[in-house]
Amino acid sequence: MLEKRNPIPVGEAVRRVMEFAFEAKKEVVPLTKAHGRFLAEDIAADIDVPAFDRSPYDGFAIRSIDSKGASRDNPVIFKVVGEIGAGYVFEGTVGKQEAVRIMTGAPIPKGCDAVVMLELTQEFEENGQSFMSIKRPFEAGTNISYRGEEVRKGEALIEKGEFINPGVIALLATFGVSDVPVFRKPVVGVIATGSELVEPGEALQPGKIRNSNAYMMMAQVERAGGTAMYLGKLKDDLEECIDAVLKAMQEVDLLITTGGVSVGDFDNVPAIYEAIGAKVLFNKVAMRPGSVTTVAVKDEKLLFGLSGNPSACYVGFELFVRPILRKAFGSKRPHLKRAQAILGADFPKPNPFTRFVRGTAFHENGTLKAIPSGFDKSSAVSSLAKANAFIVLPRGSRGYEKGMQVDVLLLDDQEGSEWPWDDIVKSYKL
Amino acid sequence: MLEKRNPIPVGEAVRRVMEFAFEAKKEVVPLTKAHGRFLAEDIAADIDVPAFDRSPYDGFAIRSIDSKGASRDNPVIFKVVGEIGAGYVFEGTVGKQEAVRIMTGAPIPKGCDAVVMLELTQEFEENGQSFMSIKRPFEAGTNISYRGEEVRKGEALIEKGEFINPGVIALLATFGVSDVPVFRKPVVGVIATGSELVEPGEALQPGKIRNSNAYMMMAQVERAGGTAMYLGKLKDDLEECIDAVLKAMQEVDLLITTGGVSVGDFDNVPAIYEAIGAKVLFNKVAMRPGSVTTVAVKDEKLLFGLSGNPSACYVGFELFVRPILRKAFGSKRPHLKRAQAILGADFPKPNPFTRFVRGTAFHENGTLKAIPSGFDKSSAVSSLAKANAFIVLPRGSRGYEKGMQVDVLLLDDQEGSEWPWDDIVKSYKL
Repeated sequence: MLEKRNPIPVGEAVRRVMEFAFEAKKEVVPLTKAHGRFLAEDIAADIDVPAFDRSPYDGFAIRSIDSKGASRDNPVIFKVVGEIGAGYVFEGTVGKQEAVRIMTGAPIPKGCDAVVMLELTQEFEENGQSFMSIKRPFEAGTNISYRGEEVRKGEALIEKGEFINPGVIALLATFGVSDVPVFRKPVVGVIATGSELVEPGEALQPGKIRNSNAYMMMAQVERAGGTAMYLGKLKDDLEECIDAVLKAMQEVDLLITTGGVSVGDFDNVPAIYEAIGAKVLFNKVAMRPGSVTTVAVKDEKLLFGLSGNPSACYVGFELFVRPILRKAFGSKRPHLKRAQAILGADFPKPNPFTRFVRGTAFHENGTLKAIPSGFDKSSAVSSLAKANAFIVLPRGSRGYEKGMQVDVLLLDDQEGSEWPWDDIVKSYKL
Repeated sequence: MLEKRNPIPVGEAVRRVMEFAFEAKKEVVPLTKAHGRFLAEDIAADIDVPAFDRSPYDGFAIRSIDSKGASRDNPVIFKVVGEIGAGYVFEGTVGKQEAVRIMTGAPIPKGCDAVVMLELTQEFEENGQSFMSIKRPFEAGTNISYRGEEVRKGEALIEKGEFINPGVIALLATFGVSDVPVFRKPVVGVIATGSELVEPGEALQPGKIRNSNAYMMMAQVERAGGTAMYLGKLKDDLEECIDAVLKAMQEVDLLITTGGVSVGDFDNVPAIYEAIGAKVLFNKVAMRPGSVTTVAVKDEKLLFGLSGNPSACYVGFELFVRPILRKAFGSKRPHLKRAQAILGADFPKPNPFTRFVRGTAFHENGTLKAIPSGFDKSSAVSSLAKANAFIVLPRGSRGYEKGMQVDVLLLDDQEGSEWPWDDIVKSYKL
């Protein structure tokens, strides 16, 4: 018997999944291990930056008042009473017509209110005493980086949920966060189903294909920030599948299966969900590839039943699984980043379902363009390697032409978007 | 004494560095560890894909000739002689008015040349024998994915030097590359110099600042694909520095120091290079921040003397060190990706040196825009955390206004560019 399924819009499908979003647990890692993780707490400045008035250049610290009247014809002379390197503090107070040789980053000595760059001074010695002279006056504040001018103590610096890039690492170091609170990586179980699958290192027999989806998804899990746990591949045997899924659910935070979601006799995923008492959120999405994507929930844990077709599996992961992982990391922009691009190819055939064409987005003279990255069939694994975007072609009664503006969803991006689906949904309301 | 340095254009500086590019050694990693690495060999298809004529849908495989004349009023009946799941091969040949129930991905049985989707058939039984009927004719080739239609055996798939993303993982799996040849990660030594530095976990004394550059650069090394080795921080003591650098050079593929490159009394890097007999490629670049960036070579190993200012250090790494790492991975596009963007802020002050302003590039209605990401001083660490691009403002006698088109170099990008410097250099020829 053919089961009748009702397709729902992709935005609605994502919305139903996101109702089961969760926040990952926290852990603390050393600063040297924090790159690429997600911050689990807001970070505020523990000090002013700069922490003291300092010199941005090598030169001489002076009292500006003493430079008054200096000119080419009438240089003003200062007695050099000391020198101060970065990391040291000048003891004492600088007096009238006195100067201190100062290095980049060193604190301004007491009494001084300006720094003259080395290039603008003339040094000389008399009777073993160093002097320097200048040929123009300097105003108070010249070449001083004031305490707190960059960041004030207590100021909010980075929010919980931010991706930790090298710039964030620099900020954490500057403010003494040597132990960094980050979100733990959720464990994502990956199961491949299908009697046709052999592992990449095994011999290929007639009728068999290599299991590419499990390995691809493990990399997608890693790119999204999670930890993948490969739980093997299953034959099309229902009892075996049920046992494997129940066992897997004890070990993982969420579970992905690939394959077995169609309506064929050997497609076991719906039967597995029924057998274990999982609630199906949807089993048909108005999208291509991946219309048979099925998502269920048991004991608050999400079970993603992705298509066995590589492209459909890939798209399903990025649309449905990625935002759950990013949300677990506290991200306010857990979904793929959406941008507008000029379509670089014709898609004359209208489609009753919104299409997500694997493509390459690139900048040309300030404009984003997007071209499909190869053979566009849901089974086409070769279109995935070069793809850095999905070209979104909303459902409708017309095709698309080269030169039209379309939405794209960018894959190699850490920024994401809050909710990319609103007007895409509108444009293809079912 | 003030040393006189001659600034060279940034493109020329990068060119001098790239003369010492090298290719990293190779190693083999399992497919599950290959994501994020760089492919060390060209990969070609070891099989046709599909490897056999297969069905893209669930349905019935038939001989199209038998469907001739079928219509709503005159259905044609087929005897169902077997069923075939994905991963299995139908034994025997299908004869006249016979059909085989076929699942998605299964090989087309001998004799058949079309697949009728399940939805378009009517099944029934008579005396224990299954039959199905159809109400329209089907042409030869209907719903058959032909062997090799996606990829032909021997076809070039991915080139050496490609970044291994999840789509590439899928391709490698599909073509049986379970052990993946990748480039080894070069070891990049990181030394921080400056008596003012304390580690992020240490107490901050007067006049001191926390060492942020070393940690930031370790993350930059990681983002670029290398392995960072932190060799500690050095006081402004020349002998100690010389020993440390000589020792470090035995352990690393390239060495980065931060700080000590200015012309101040305590800036030891030039003296270190002289003492160890390293050849200085340049010690002044016509750029801000980072004009004092110094690069030297000893025994074919590059020594990068980056500025101690966080932003200058950051920019210096991305412009000079990153392409050396990417080139070591066989990349044809080792430099930062360049794009054109609309400037989102005024920069009224003309600058004798080309500026690399830390900024955020974002898409708005199909156009790339770029705004500075905060306080623009070379010491400003807070501008780095949100930066995903450098806004390039070529040197010249005029400032820049909001709305002008400028070049940007994108930081969160795996594609890179071949040589972004050509017309940037032209526009500010010294």
